[in-house]
Amino acid sequence: MTTKAAVSCLILASLLGAFLVGVSARPKSNETDRAAILAVLTTQQNDWNRGDTRAFMNGYWNSTELTFAGTRGFTRGWQTVMERYQKTYADKAAMGMLDFQELEIRPLGPDAALVLGKWHLQRQGGDIGGIFTLVFQKFPEGWRIVHDHTTQSPPETK
Amino acid sequence: MTTKAAVSCLILASLLGAFLVGVSARPKSNETDRAAILAVLTTQQNDWNRGDTRAFMNGYWNSTELTFAGTRGFTRGWQTVMERYQKTYADKAAMGMLDFQELEIRPLGPDAALVLGKWHLQRQGGDIGGIFTLVFQKFPEGWRIVHDHTTQSPPETK
Repeated sequence: MTTKAAVSCLILASLLGAFLVGVSARPKSNETDRAAILAVLTTQQNDWNRGDTRAFMNGYWNSTELTFAGTRGFTRGWQTVMERYQKTYADKAAMGMLDFQELEIRPLGPDAALVLGKWHLQRQGGDIGGIFTLVFQKFPEGWRIVHDHTTQSPPETK
Repeated sequence: MTTKAAVSCLILASLLGAFLVGVSARPKSNETDRAAILAVLTTQQNDWNRGDTRAFMNGYWNSTELTFAGTRGFTRGWQTVMERYQKTYADKAAMGMLDFQELEIRPLGPDAALVLGKWHLQRQGGDIGGIFTLVFQKFPEGWRIVHDHTTQSPPETK
């Protein structure tokens, strides 16, 4: 073939390759991600309500870089976050029955999402609740919480 | 050229095209984004310290979908978030001198970032402070806060 034909072939085929990569790189349906994120939270809720803090922690990124923001500042690392939960909610009575409400999932790109919601703990010793901000990232093992900012609402006047 | 040669040409050139798109699609240097996000926060700090709440609000996404999570729940929409600030910090004495500290910027993809940090307001009537979680997204006009979760620390025992 002539040089001109070879160059044309190269350009056209490059465009084809670029197109194919472009198509494959397009973010997949948000619905799949949304369902996967909701499944993580539902599993967490069930694990908590069985009193299994360690299983509940599976929803979090198992990394020293995991962060939790609470009233007393930042807690860093999966292990430390778990120990904080175990200390704050020492037994099943303190853990109570967890309920996530009004979940709002906002994609932040192909591998990240922001989740807002409300939490409620039904307990014999007194209910508590509040709001949270979760940042999820997608890992080979699935969607995991990489940052959690949880606020407890002040007690309501009855 | 033979059919075999043409097919080889097509495959090789497709790979080249795919490679070129892959290189261009790779996220740009995080340093540029990091500097842009820091600039938004520095501008916000300066605007606040001039008592200019409206200018301070330029750091936020001007959208009805902007969210702010505080002690009393979620506030939605740019205008409502500004009104909340104007009500909570009615004058320059209440606003005090704002200082952001220990900023931590974590990329969440090409167009999103998580920012953690501490805030402090130096005021004649009494200092206050706490921690925050910010989610930034990149828009044609630049990086903007799309979600803010701010917690005020309980007063320290002196």
